[in-house]
Amino acid sequence: MGAIVFETLSVQAEDGVLRVTLHRPESRNAMSLAMVDELQAVLDQAEGDGTRVLVLRGAGGHFCSGADIRDMAGARQRELSGDPWAVAAINARFGRLCAGYARTGVATVAVLEGAVMGGGLGLACVVDVALAGRSARLRLPETSLGLVPAQIATFLVERVGLSQARRLAVTGGTLTAAQAQAIGLVHEALDDGAELEAALASTLARILRCAPHAVAATKALMARAHSQTAASLVDEASRLFAEAVRGPEGAEGMAAFLQKRSPSWAV
Amino acid sequence: MGAIVFETLSVQAEDGVLRVTLHRPESRNAMSLAMVDELQAVLDQAEGDGTRVLVLRGAGGHFCSGADIRDMAGARQRELSGDPWAVAAINARFGRLCAGYARTGVATVAVLEGAVMGGGLGLACVVDVALAGRSARLRLPETSLGLVPAQIATFLVERVGLSQARRLAVTGGTLTAAQAQAIGLVHEALDDGAELEAALASTLARILRCAPHAVAATKALMARAHSQTAASLVDEASRLFAEAVRGPEGAEGMAAFLQKRSPSWAV
Amino acid sequence: MGAIVFETLSVQAEDGVLRVTLHRPESRNAMSLAMVDELQAVLDQAEGDGTRVLVLRGAGGHFCSGADIRDMAGARQRELSGDPWAVAAINARFGRLCAGYARTGVATVAVLEGAVMGGGLGLACVVDVALAGRSARLRLPETSLGLVPAQIATFLVERVGLSQARRLAVTGGTLTAAQAQAIGLVHEALDDGAELEAALASTLARILRCAPHAVAATKALMARAHSQTAASLVDEASRLFAEAVRGPEGAEGMAAFLQKRSPSWAV
Repeated sequence: MGAIVFETLSVQAEDGVLRVTLHRPESRNAMSLAMVDELQAVLDQAEGDGTRVLVLRGAGGHFCSGADIRDMAGARQRELSGDPWAVAAINARFGRLCAGYARTGVATVAVLEGAVMGGGLGLACVVDVALAGRSARLRLPETSLGLVPAQIATFLVERVGLSQARRLAVTGGTLTAAQAQAIGLVHEALDDGAELEAALASTLARILRCAPHAVAATKALMARAHSQTAASLVDEASRLFAEAVRGPEGAEGMAAFLQKRSPSWAV
Repeated sequence: MGAIVFETLSVQAEDGVLRVTLHRPESRNAMSLAMVDELQAVLDQAEGDGTRVLVLRGAGGHFCSGADIRDMAGARQRELSGDPWAVAAINARFGRLCAGYARTGVATVAVLEGAVMGGGLGLACVVDVALAGRSARLRLPETSLGLVPAQIATFLVERVGLSQARRLAVTGGTLTAAQAQAIGLVHEALDDGAELEAALASTLARILRCAPHAVAATKALMARAHSQTAASLVDEASRLFAEAVRGPEGAEGMAAFLQKRSPSWAV
Repeated sequence: MGAIVFETLSVQAEDGVLRVTLHRPESRNAMSLAMVDELQAVLDQAEGDGTRVLVLRGAGGHFCSGADIRDMAGARQRELSGDPWAVAAINARFGRLCAGYARTGVATVAVLEGAVMGGGLGLACVVDVALAGRSARLRLPETSLGLVPAQIATFLVERVGLSQARRLAVTGGTLTAAQAQAIGLVHEALDDGAELEAALASTLARILRCAPHAVAATKALMARAHSQTAASLVDEASRLFAEAVRGPEGAEGMAAFLQKRSPSWAV
């Protein structure tokens, strides 16, 4: 990771864990176009370099306050100068970022504090484990601004189902960490500070006990089960199982189990 | 709205809010065929006349006790006289009513008290925000009567997922407001009376701060995300976003935000 | 049922209820191939002989500790001897078992105590009503062994949705009964012993008040609503409703209702 210099992120890699901090504290880490591109670059790197867990959080007590208003104004300006889909293009770039995080084989965790708005809420919807501190305020402000929370709406439905997603959009509501946990938008609601950090450490420890290729294969299969019935996936699942058993992780896992030792991937 | 005279509903419009009361207290607001047709007419009107929120509730301390047994007996009689699908036809009319409320762009709220049974439960499943008082008893009695809760079953799955829906159908269970909230069938469980009215007022206030076309576009997109993956909707979502930005609501919303004033739609 | 002798199950039928106990207490009821085949045979029988509820539980304070390691080793051996899909074949047999229980018209209940792991968790995901005692520990250990919880992953997504399922797989987590209830994996979390038995008795009593064909038709319709929108099922649902009304259960249910007596199926 050392080779890439980031403008909007601070990135730290250790023992298979890549800690990515959104770092524009002057705007509560508003998601500029540069940040979208850098988050994509970080994911591409992580997928190639053996990273096992990617942790997203924000600098300065906030996760992310949503899109950067200046980028939006610039794109709007380009539309008026004859580029009819300038706004759509930058919005789609953010959507593809969410889709990329949603389907990656790398395990992902988000630590949510303070503002978790708009695009920040979108990212919170696509990670495998979302931990929220008591300071977190999750919000979908778009409809109250005359806008459509377009990319976020669809990933929010994937996260919490149609009923809760629609209610949030129609009422423009703000959720606390506990309320977000009650509807399944985040997985744990915690005190800020020590309790949140302990939950992150324990989540990372548990993830690192799981075999990385097995995790990636399971994530991919579960994504398919989201749009197909389980019954229709029986044969495909059985092949995935057999391949895992005969692969190196299966052999090592079984050997470690019989020898009552930790497998090689459990750091 | 003043032009239509209703037999089974009482209807009151003010400031973009259409309050519709099921009004057959002698039968705990059983859903007669006339009521189905009038609820459809009210929705058609609301979609055409700029109504921003449609509120459904029942007169006399009950929401709705289900289908009217006399209509059913009449249809059964017509079947015996040679109209083989008389019962199916009236059942489908109710199903289309639910589908219409489920897909409308108008924001919808239900206030649930007392009996919320059969068809009443179906309506509760399709509104954007369902508020339930402590007196509410939500029930699916059909299977214990030898019947199939056919239209309700499918919208219940859309609301709470297959697992909870199937359990309710198989056990014929009755849910309190708190139990209904725990499985996501309603969004808030409240004391009857003042607390329920305050929750309704606050829900309406929050909805009215959101731009009506943005709400309708978001609802439509979320409905699509219920049957398609979010990743497959990235491009379509980006166009919706761009259209909202360049539309009149987006312009007004942005101007109001920069001028630190309320947008025109926030009554 | 008396005609079949089971090696891994103990089976008792009374008043339409078939109580099936996984009975290999020496291995915490590990799911051997013989058990998979016998659970399939029990289901086939129940579907043919008028059984109304099938109850699954485990002997000796555990539900099921997952696949039997010896069967797996044997299949792996056959792979090495030239049968390339021996492991896949036995895995698929378990997947078809889950699919069969997921789609049966018979009502199904599981009583979960102690170990509910791997394949045991899969079965817990497909019954209509899952009751868990305080001793229950629900776990997906596969990824920590280098394996893919393939069949279980897909039914887990069907049960709790993509977000919670993915989190469990990625973290290899263990859930208590209360945690499993919070995410909808089980329907009731209870004290072991008397409270659990009382919940089972009350669940059975409620199921037996519902008409068996109506229950089966509703389950089948709900399964379709899981992969199709409710709006697209309006006409089909109306035909199912009409057929139930004119069928023998509908006639008996309506007669019993008017005569203020119990219908014939309410034992």
